[in-house]
Amino acid sequence: MAYAYWKSGKQDNEATFDLFFRKNPFKGEFTIFAGLSDCLDFVENFKFADSDIAYLQTVMPYCESEFFQYLAQLKPDQITIEAIKEGSICFPRIPLVKVSGPIIIVQLFETVFLNLINYSSLVATNAARFRIASGKKIKLLEFGLRRAQGPNGGLTASRYSYLGGFDGTSNVLAGKLFDIPVKGTHAHAYVSSFTSMKELDGLTLQPNGDCAEQDLYGLGGGQQEDFVTLCGKLQKVLAAKLNILAGECNEGELAAFASFSIAFPHGFLALIDTYDVCKSGVVNFCAVALALHHFGYRALGVRIDSGDLAYLSTVVREVFDEIAKSYDIPWFSELEIVASNDINEETILSLNDQGHKITCFGIGTHLVTCQRQPALGCVYKLVEVDNVARIKLSQDVEKVTMPGKKRAFRLYGKDGFAIIDLLQMPDETPPEPGVRVLCRHPFSESRRAYVSPYKQETERRNLSKIKVDELYDVVWESGRRVGGKHSLQEIREHVQHSLRTLRPDHRRSLNPTPYKVSVSDNLYQFIHKLWLENAPIGELS
Amino acid sequence: MAYAYWKSGKQDNEATFDLFFRKNPFKGEFTIFAGLSDCLDFVENFKFADSDIAYLQTVMPYCESEFFQYLAQLKPDQITIEAIKEGSICFPRIPLVKVSGPIIIVQLFETVFLNLINYSSLVATNAARFRIASGKKIKLLEFGLRRAQGPNGGLTASRYSYLGGFDGTSNVLAGKLFDIPVKGTHAHAYVSSFTSMKELDGLTLQPNGDCAEQDLYGLGGGQQEDFVTLCGKLQKVLAAKLNILAGECNEGELAAFASFSIAFPHGFLALIDTYDVCKSGVVNFCAVALALHHFGYRALGVRIDSGDLAYLSTVVREVFDEIAKSYDIPWFSELEIVASNDINEETILSLNDQGHKITCFGIGTHLVTCQRQPALGCVYKLVEVDNVARIKLSQDVEKVTMPGKKRAFRLYGKDGFAIIDLLQMPDETPPEPGVRVLCRHPFSESRRAYVSPYKQETERRNLSKIKVDELYDVVWESGRRVGGKHSLQEIREHVQHSLRTLRPDHRRSLNPTPYKVSVSDNLYQFIHKLWLENAPIGELS
Repeated sequence: MAYAYWKSGKQDNEATFDLFFRKNPFKGEFTIFAGLSDCLDFVENFKFADSDIAYLQTVMPYCESEFFQYLAQLKPDQITIEAIKEGSICFPRIPLVKVSGPIIIVQLFETVFLNLINYSSLVATNAARFRIASGKKIKLLEFGLRRAQGPNGGLTASRYSYLGGFDGTSNVLAGKLFDIPVKGTHAHAYVSSFTSMKELDGLTLQPNGDCAEQDLYGLGGGQQEDFVTLCGKLQKVLAAKLNILAGECNEGELAAFASFSIAFPHGFLALIDTYDVCKSGVVNFCAVALALHHFGYRALGVRIDSGDLAYLSTVVREVFDEIAKSYDIPWFSELEIVASNDINEETILSLNDQGHKITCFGIGTHLVTCQRQPALGCVYKLVEVDNVARIKLSQDVEKVTMPGKKRAFRLYGKDGFAIIDLLQMPDETPPEPGVRVLCRHPFSESRRAYVSPYKQETERRNLSKIKVDELYDVVWESGRRVGGKHSLQEIREHVQHSLRTLRPDHRRSLNPTPYKVSVSDNLYQFIHKLWLENAPIGELS
Repeated sequence: MAYAYWKSGKQDNEATFDLFFRKNPFKGEFTIFAGLSDCLDFVENFKFADSDIAYLQTVMPYCESEFFQYLAQLKPDQITIEAIKEGSICFPRIPLVKVSGPIIIVQLFETVFLNLINYSSLVATNAARFRIASGKKIKLLEFGLRRAQGPNGGLTASRYSYLGGFDGTSNVLAGKLFDIPVKGTHAHAYVSSFTSMKELDGLTLQPNGDCAEQDLYGLGGGQQEDFVTLCGKLQKVLAAKLNILAGECNEGELAAFASFSIAFPHGFLALIDTYDVCKSGVVNFCAVALALHHFGYRALGVRIDSGDLAYLSTVVREVFDEIAKSYDIPWFSELEIVASNDINEETILSLNDQGHKITCFGIGTHLVTCQRQPALGCVYKLVEVDNVARIKLSQDVEKVTMPGKKRAFRLYGKDGFAIIDLLQMPDETPPEPGVRVLCRHPFSESRRAYVSPYKQETERRNLSKIKVDELYDVVWESGRRVGGKHSLQEIREHVQHSLRTLRPDHRRSLNPTPYKVSVSDNLYQFIHKLWLENAPIGELS
């Protein structure tokens, strides 16, 4: 296409493209906009390398050599990019990014921008939905590298899950590259690699300060107990206490837990479902955690990766509570319970209904593949060339584009929640607080509403004081990046801030209320005039 | 985990892990194994960089510094890797890859191998299914970059779609890096960037040899006709011929097509649905294609990206046939018709049922995201430590692992089709052609069959002459890659070869017959003995 533009002498036609999507993902009513920073990094580094040119010459042998010389010197210095702030909630048909400049280069950005924004926004939205479903108090860890589209697909997933509201990742390289907290536990293999406590011969743990002096859980004996031996003794005591045959508690599992706790006395978190959560895993974990306590350390908790998570987490929490009480160790009631078996949004909502005692979810497949809807349908459409608006028609009304350059505003109500997004033509007076403005559905003639953005400034609910937001900032101009320079951490915070401006009924998982997206009356008239001018009249016979 | 193994002194325990999946994707009965070559590249380059070590020290501050020194010198020189040949059909529970060596390093490979094999195999399988659904004669192009998990997710998708049976990609970088044919057309934006034939003032096309001398489609006038003018005249002639008001044919679209054909006279392929396929697009395309013909060039065809693809392709083909006949240009009947709107496997099967005239599908979203099932559930499980078999139990029978080192064989019947895959213990006599062998379901006691691999050698259907295949080759040994060095092209061919060994009823899309995967009687007894030894006996009260 670039060659054809060049060959037709159109390469410098001033074009504007809108990047937008037509439908929120996951049957939801909001989307988180992400990927802008990557787009701007791309633009900053935009250049055809010599090897690129050489390759293109081999696959397009008929193209004139002047064209390749032209490509080699192509620079994004006449491009202007406007965009919604990264991390904001956004809605169908309101462009996320608007790119203007010589048509040849603006067109070359199409696939790159779509690639960088589609999946990033999708997975960030998915992450935000997991966060909403699980509530603020639950920790959310991304465990999805093994199911991602190759190593770099995994990095994208980790980065944008964190941006969307996750607390950490098991992808260590993502941690290194993006400064995301890395969290993980051990695998079943660690447990099944041990068969007997004998394998721990010679392993010791240094006490963290003095060992607790008290009667050592009724075991008798002194405080000089060796750590491994203590774990073994405590297993028997606890099995008896919990009415489990000591023989049912797997010895290899105890050995695995004891050795793991020796390696990580400050960070002991054990996977307890290799053999049987209730009869083996939880007993062995508690034995080791109590031994750690005696040695002056505090265990972190357990992970459960199979079975009925609501039921098992409740049983495990009861055991923790009982031990907390019996031995007067209050923090035992607060031990982490991580759940991680094929968790999706519906699982979490269902667990909430059933009641559970999980404090952290580790989520892989459903997060990174966005199984419920693995693609966000962002498109990049030409809306203007040389100051003349262009429209793309379609049999399908939903696919008709909004022609011309546009401005976008978000109008807020008294309670600080967003009411509606409004697209206007560039020369219209922007909406003002306290002034009624007519908002129309872009395609449905009779759907109209007057909206008055709230006038009083308020700091209630700690929300933005501005009651009319103009949505676009210029982020690239005259060959320089002039915006969109927020850190991952800042964007991550902005996601939560922006979500708080969305009414809970728009936010909810099941049958959310549609958020309204509208056009001004002028823009409505303009779109429909252009539409009729360009659509052939059908003829039936 | 690595630190805990090291700290427990277990780092050199000789461990074997099996990488396998439990269920074929897409409700199918086969999977294409892909990603091995990437795994071996990773192993060849395995090394902790200084910056990796430095990062790990910051996130694991409690670990001993000797451990980091140990990591820094860790090399895969005591690892052995065996694998099925990349590109082969493979089945649940039969390990794809077996990795043996010091437990610490073998464990470190887990996530990398899963990441490199899961998605690659999934998308290759998806591509192979598209190929089966569409038949051999249809061209399949991958158009999915914009929906992939970032730029490198897109590269993985392009590479493994090609491996699975696609013919090309629109991802130019994938073409450059992997030597995949790059194919694409123009976008709607190219069409809507033109409004009038006046924009083509000054554009000319040099004839390819002499212009055809004949009466120029009944236009009268001489052969000296200017290309752009000729396109305009032909549009009117064809509109009249096809009973369409000339005013319905969009002039901007004609200008776009004419200019695109001037840029690519040898490769003119036009997107014809920007305004109306039947009233505008096909007429404008044919006008330009006839003009090209007069100038000595042959057009390639059209792309349709919306609407009823079966119906539109039929109408368009009828127009092509009519023109072929009217003007005696036989190749006009053979013009390419590319379809590309949200195509999935079901769409293709449904189009086949309806009857269509499409010759090529451009497939994006459904191919790269594998929307029907976006993750293959490969796992990596410990099966042996220091020559002692390990089993991982689970409440869910499907999740119980096959303990110990195993060999795998594929047994073929008289017609050259695969009958069954058989896992054996390492010391058993391999199955032989003509000799009956007992094959058992791994978990269901009563499901058994005697299988006699066919004895006679045959070259029928050009299939392998070997009637018993041992599935594993050693691909890494003593610090060196000793296999799995096939080129993308070779693996791609092996996929089709391997698929031909699968009976059509296993291959089909709807309700395929399950392909059998079995264990020898010895292995059956061994698994179940170990299972009972490790499972606690439940107690109900």
